[in-house]
Amino acid sequence: MKKILNDPEKYVDEMLEGFVAAHPEFYRMHGDSGKVVARAEKAKAGKVGIVTGGGSGHLPVFTGYVGEGLLDACAIGDVFASPSADQMADAIRAADQGAGVLRLYGNYGGDIMNFDMAGELVEFDDIECTTVLLTDDVASAPPEDHAKRRGVAGMVYAFKLAGAAAEEGRDLEGVTAVAQKAADACRSIGAALSSCTVPQAGKPTFDIADDEMEMGMGIHGEPGVWRGKLRTADEIAGEMMDRLLAETPLSSGDRVSVLVNSLGATPPEELYILYRTVKQRLEAAGATIVMPLVGRYATSMEMSGVSFTLCKLDDELEALLKAPCNCAFWRVG
Amino acid sequence: MKKILNDPEKYVDEMLEGFVAAHPEFYRMHGDSGKVVARAEKAKAGKVGIVTGGGSGHLPVFTGYVGEGLLDACAIGDVFASPSADQMADAIRAADQGAGVLRLYGNYGGDIMNFDMAGELVEFDDIECTTVLLTDDVASAPPEDHAKRRGVAGMVYAFKLAGAAAEEGRDLEGVTAVAQKAADACRSIGAALSSCTVPQAGKPTFDIADDEMEMGMGIHGEPGVWRGKLRTADEIAGEMMDRLLAETPLSSGDRVSVLVNSLGATPPEELYILYRTVKQRLEAAGATIVMPLVGRYATSMEMSGVSFTLCKLDDELEALLKAPCNCAFWRVG
Repeated sequence: MKKILNDPEKYVDEMLEGFVAAHPEFYRMHGDSGKVVARAEKAKAGKVGIVTGGGSGHLPVFTGYVGEGLLDACAIGDVFASPSADQMADAIRAADQGAGVLRLYGNYGGDIMNFDMAGELVEFDDIECTTVLLTDDVASAPPEDHAKRRGVAGMVYAFKLAGAAAEEGRDLEGVTAVAQKAADACRSIGAALSSCTVPQAGKPTFDIADDEMEMGMGIHGEPGVWRGKLRTADEIAGEMMDRLLAETPLSSGDRVSVLVNSLGATPPEELYILYRTVKQRLEAAGATIVMPLVGRYATSMEMSGVSFTLCKLDDELEALLKAPCNCAFWRVG
Repeated sequence: MKKILNDPEKYVDEMLEGFVAAHPEFYRMHGDSGKVVARAEKAKAGKVGIVTGGGSGHLPVFTGYVGEGLLDACAIGDVFASPSADQMADAIRAADQGAGVLRLYGNYGGDIMNFDMAGELVEFDDIECTTVLLTDDVASAPPEDHAKRRGVAGMVYAFKLAGAAAEEGRDLEGVTAVAQKAADACRSIGAALSSCTVPQAGKPTFDIADDEMEMGMGIHGEPGVWRGKLRTADEIAGEMMDRLLAETPLSSGDRVSVLVNSLGATPPEELYILYRTVKQRLEAAGATIVMPLVGRYATSMEMSGVSFTLCKLDDELEALLKAPCNCAFWRVG
């Protein structure tokens, strides 16, 4: 197992200990569960809170995006496992500034069950909650079953856009509407070349030959749409763009942001090779690219592979995308 | 080969094409070699220029650190290969603002030969040049042969500190003195768990068993000080800190910055687990940690492993470290 760790059972606790110690200007632990991270400095009173939560192993997702113009708090589970309802309730309390709290997270069964229970727990605290789920992974279900799709790197855009709306003072209904609009505007697809290893499992989640890839694989190793010989960068990027553009038709004058994301081990050099094709395809469609993102924004530890996310913009979303944000992993403005 | 690329012969050209296209606000190609990157907007006239250069495959090193408060230009070679003297001369010309140019780079034979020739080439342009070499890798030669040591992630600090000195208007002698002081203040060591693959070679640079690691390995796979069974995070961090603190004795009241750097595939989760021990050791020595850096600052593509760099600070270096800088990979202030 090519991982640097101590006891697999302590992987998340030790990770969070180091995470908060390395970036005290951005993050603090909230409460005594040891699994809830909040902004180092609370947002101003009256701001709508935004919380997320989910399994560990995806940094900067989820907890890295706690910060100004982004999230207020995050509940962190074990690697690829949901946090508990109690932890999520604690995160909601940490995010609350008296104006209600948006729960913004990916469409996974365990997270939904626990976040729903957390919402019931904080009713006693008189905290109003709304929910928006990310369902941006086009490979995880056909378009007619859109609501069954998993949430992947599109949540980076949703965090940014909803976070900016909350920071500028919109109310809970308004922030929730922006988050839903962002979720609706995003489509993603991934392609994996190798598995990661969950520490407690101690071996790769799946086997894949050295000359193989899997198109459409999920961020926990969920099966994709095909497995076959590794193709060239241009072929991989071309197919991924085909699949995204089929659901996000673009024409002249459209504006779009695009995230070319490493799933972990794939280095930025390869992302830039892919970005050439992404840019060519978007420009060939007549679209204008706004604030392209190339890097590691949503990962699966040391998994080798990439994902692309398209986020189609209008005036409102473009302004929110360009609004300031600041955390240890992303700064705008 | 778990790499996403087209033609290995075009790896660097396509990478640079995508790199500049993704970040036009920071970078532009200079000249017609296709291998020199400069700031998108030239620095103000009269500023001392700083250039670097070296092989590809280490992003953000080298060319990612072109930017305000950092470098002015960079010549890029093939993966792990020196750029040519002509390309380095072009980079020097791109960096020149009439106040001379510092060549700041790692202690590798090919780079030295070509940068020296480049200096002769630009004599005809009447550009005064100085040189500072990074020799921070403690595993690459014993202390008494300090000048033979390789330069590794310490160059991130050297770029930052010399870049800040140049930005605040110091002259060539002053900027060169800061760069040398920074180089002298830095000590690094790496530990690798797996090899990367040079695209043109098409197979891993070295073999290493799945349960093995190599302490002290260089960023191109140069042999380290021992190879053996993979140890725990605390043991690895402890030995790396022992080796660094042996050459950077710290006592109460000392200030130090530390870089906990992924060599590529190792995810931030593991860096944070390591950072706990790093922080404990520095604080046990009585030192104050200033602006710790945890992330991917100097890599070897998809190599799995980490490096630590200590940079001992005085008032001057601390102020320069905290001064503003901005590029696609690092922003301060």
